[in-house]
Amino acid sequence: MKDKINVIVWNEFVHEKEHEAAKAVYPDGIHHVIAGFLGTDKTLSMGTATLDEPDHGLTDERLASCDVLIWWGHMAHDRVSDAVVDRVQRRILEGMGLVVLHSGHYSKIFRRMMGTTCSLKWREAEEQERIWVIEPSHPIAAGLGQYFEIPYEEMYGERFEIPAPDETVFLSWFEGGEVFRSGCCWTRGHGRIFYFRPGHETYPTYYQKEVQTVIGNAVHWAAPRVTIPGVEDSPNITVPLNPIKEKNVHFGKAGVIQQGGKNL
Amino acid sequence: MKDKINVIVWNEFVHEKEHEAAKAVYPDGIHHVIAGFLGTDKTLSMGTATLDEPDHGLTDERLASCDVLIWWGHMAHDRVSDAVVDRVQRRILEGMGLVVLHSGHYSKIFRRMMGTTCSLKWREAEEQERIWVIEPSHPIAAGLGQYFEIPYEEMYGERFEIPAPDETVFLSWFEGGEVFRSGCCWTRGHGRIFYFRPGHETYPTYYQKEVQTVIGNAVHWAAPRVTIPGVEDSPNITVPLNPIKEKNVHFGKAGVIQQGGKNL
Amino acid sequence: MKDKINVIVWNEFVHEKEHEAAKAVYPDGIHHVIAGFLGTDKTLSMGTATLDEPDHGLTDERLASCDVLIWWGHMAHDRVSDAVVDRVQRRILEGMGLVVLHSGHYSKIFRRMMGTTCSLKWREAEEQERIWVIEPSHPIAAGLGQYFEIPYEEMYGERFEIPAPDETVFLSWFEGGEVFRSGCCWTRGHGRIFYFRPGHETYPTYYQKEVQTVIGNAVHWAAPRVTIPGVEDSPNITVPLNPIKEKNVHFGKAGVIQQGGKNL
Amino acid sequence: MKDKINVIVWNEFVHEKEHEAAKAVYPDGIHHVIAGFLGTDKTLSMGTATLDEPDHGLTDERLASCDVLIWWGHMAHDRVSDAVVDRVQRRILEGMGLVVLHSGHYSKIFRRMMGTTCSLKWREAEEQERIWVIEPSHPIAAGLGQYFEIPYEEMYGERFEIPAPDETVFLSWFEGGEVFRSGCCWTRGHGRIFYFRPGHETYPTYYQKEVQTVIGNAVHWAAPRVTIPGVEDSPNITVPLNPIKEKNVHFGKAGVIQQGGKNL
Repeated sequence: MKDKINVIVWNEFVHEKEHEAAKAVYPDGIHHVIAGFLGTDKTLSMGTATLDEPDHGLTDERLASCDVLIWWGHMAHDRVSDAVVDRVQRRILEGMGLVVLHSGHYSKIFRRMMGTTCSLKWREAEEQERIWVIEPSHPIAAGLGQYFEIPYEEMYGERFEIPAPDETVFLSWFEGGEVFRSGCCWTRGHGRIFYFRPGHETYPTYYQKEVQTVIGNAVHWAAPRVTIPGVEDSPNITVPLNPIKEKNVHFGKAGVIQQGGKNL
Repeated sequence: MKDKINVIVWNEFVHEKEHEAAKAVYPDGIHHVIAGFLGTDKTLSMGTATLDEPDHGLTDERLASCDVLIWWGHMAHDRVSDAVVDRVQRRILEGMGLVVLHSGHYSKIFRRMMGTTCSLKWREAEEQERIWVIEPSHPIAAGLGQYFEIPYEEMYGERFEIPAPDETVFLSWFEGGEVFRSGCCWTRGHGRIFYFRPGHETYPTYYQKEVQTVIGNAVHWAAPRVTIPGVEDSPNITVPLNPIKEKNVHFGKAGVIQQGGKNL
Repeated sequence: MKDKINVIVWNEFVHEKEHEAAKAVYPDGIHHVIAGFLGTDKTLSMGTATLDEPDHGLTDERLASCDVLIWWGHMAHDRVSDAVVDRVQRRILEGMGLVVLHSGHYSKIFRRMMGTTCSLKWREAEEQERIWVIEPSHPIAAGLGQYFEIPYEEMYGERFEIPAPDETVFLSWFEGGEVFRSGCCWTRGHGRIFYFRPGHETYPTYYQKEVQTVIGNAVHWAAPRVTIPGVEDSPNITVPLNPIKEKNVHFGKAGVIQQGGKNL
Repeated sequence: MKDKINVIVWNEFVHEKEHEAAKAVYPDGIHHVIAGFLGTDKTLSMGTATLDEPDHGLTDERLASCDVLIWWGHMAHDRVSDAVVDRVQRRILEGMGLVVLHSGHYSKIFRRMMGTTCSLKWREAEEQERIWVIEPSHPIAAGLGQYFEIPYEEMYGERFEIPAPDETVFLSWFEGGEVFRSGCCWTRGHGRIFYFRPGHETYPTYYQKEVQTVIGNAVHWAAPRVTIPGVEDSPNITVPLNPIKEKNVHFGKAGVIQQGGKNL
């Protein structure tokens, strides 16, 4: 077994430089806070990457050694290059885990992996969110009680335009009357994908203990058990495992089949 | 209820013009044969489209009234324009059904909807295929027995690089030793997707009764029960359904929350 | 196609005879109200059955011609005989639909089909319930908007101890802070099962239009497309479809394999 | 983390005492061989239990400390007491893993957990079986190649009367022409269940390396991450988490709702 799980926290890192409300809560960027609390887990090796770095910090080399990629984005989804999205997708299909946070629901990479629009309802109103654990024995729910509350959050409401999750771990109740599938698991290729709803850039959500527990659990859950190269290959198996009888037939139009010059 | 289900059979229509073996079996194109046998079902209104038509025959207008799109392609997947793939995807997400046949597993639209490579093993050896019906009460299996055989087919073998199907209706046994998930169902957005394995261009597969039965059943299964426009919308629900308590808090770094100038 | 879908509404019919609050709302029994509104659909042929009838009204003869069984029970689950539960289970596995309502979550037949305890949290407080439609293109959601509200209901809260549903159509938001998977679909054998949460015996829920719409839709969804007798059979297929090579081997302890007196 | 995973191998142990062909291959019982090869994994603590022991060797005490139960049975399914089946089911729902082998498909406990008949086709013909790994990154497939072969096995063929598995890891190809879902995963309550097809009592299957690898992997996969007592509880949550408005309404027949003596 390898020593540590390599984790990259990707953040577009725009709100925290341009908007006062976000800067006040996350002065060094959301990625900095996430990498910080995950870094206290000594089985993880943490790194970060942001939009403005060359290749958005996601070169082939970095991805090749990355086990789990965490993704936060919002206002700059369109500025992520398609080439990088292609590269990340390929790596997920080989086995790399992907943890998508909050407004990352609309990122190119999440939409690419889902095949759907990933749209939803939303409201910013410093609203109470109660996250119910509906699969308490799932590894992503380890260490949580029956529910936990986030006192101030943006609301996301159903219909969430995603393929039905393989596993739904959390459901959110919102003060203003909506519900949401807030913790969703999928496998795509050999990679595991987890979407976790909370984390608006102007609220202190990523400082909350339960939220940190979930993200840490998700990293361990999404870490690849094995990576499978060659998911792009379609090999021609010319030598069969069991004998194939020679048929000596010819095919014509309208479904005609001939053998030795006669119709079958 | 609308009168008829509008079906478009899309075919790249290249093999049947360029290769003798394919031309011999399908002189007017695979799409012609499929539209022909489906046309005997008077609840269907049939059309066709091919690669060489403007917009590959898939304009916004035609797609807007299309209920189910059938897709056959193989050697010219790359020549399908991304703009048309975008358009087809959007229409599927609104509710249009998609039936992907055989080598269409590698089409841009199927890979787009799945999010995976859709690769597999293959062999051309006029090989016996036995298709087992593992969900005999599924509507796509209506009218079939416990299995049916295709005497001459190309082999496709697992691992098929797809997301786990919502429903697996058929499993194939091949003479040469492989197995395959040959009838797979997914929902993406509000559209239903069915992949059906058989149909190599040089074999008379589409003239076989059971194969025709499956494709006909799949069209009825995939026909939209309702279409949902606006799957791209993410509405801001400013007026909540239930009252939200005013909190009057301010947020600072390191998770600090203040109310009336004091830390909470 | 057969003329009509045969539906039996089963009700234990105890509350409505013994408790004033239930008697006030459903003087002739909940089954009477449900059979009444469903009876306005002329594609359905309605019947009822109750606990006190011989065989609880569910003889082999009645079940043999029943397409969809609706189940309401609460205080007398234990008085349902195991022989009748065995019989209903067998019929579901052959293809009969089952629609379980509200406190039927704890019925013997639902627990039998699920294999789990089906426990949940609850509270009686004339509480507002908002049912969100999270799969708007599912046939059970036909004719509904994005959500509907039941002004007075009993609360059921997660964790609901069920196997993960094949499809989750509705999620409930409760005034008091809980959420619930309120519309859940499963296939077991060749029968389709739908659980629908609302319907406390002292509230006028079954008089509400949207609730009636859901139950009607569920009946159509659960009606068998085909019934498959013989789900108990395990046939010995002595004559193989393809030839099996004769091996002439003998097996001994520790994995020894002998052929012609020699170890392989 | 606890030191070891406690495993009990349960075997009815009748064939190996009564039938020469089974006795020749497994003179001390199938359970003895399985416990033997698993015992070389020092993270497992092995025990066995058989039909003839008091409580079939499955007392409440033993089950309370059991993490994973492996089950082999065939000719004596009916002799397993319902009380023991109840007890095992309860423990699985709390989190204990269950690994069901071969003819255990017809055991009371497997049928109880599935809710279906679990019937299938079969043939005894010293037949070649090729097991294809269709989910190569699943933990139960660790250490296997793309497929492995069992040279002499009993055939099991589809339709296997089970609920659609949560994950299907293996598909079998049989020399005589059938296919089978040979490695199937489910979660029920908080317990994980794995069915593995091979293991006829007169063939040396359990001495084969790949078969041993799968069973070992399955034990680790099924070991509980957490056990959840109280899955039978349905608590009344009298104090709501959020305030519920007092409604002061009364309900009458035909859906009448009154407040302060007036109809609403």
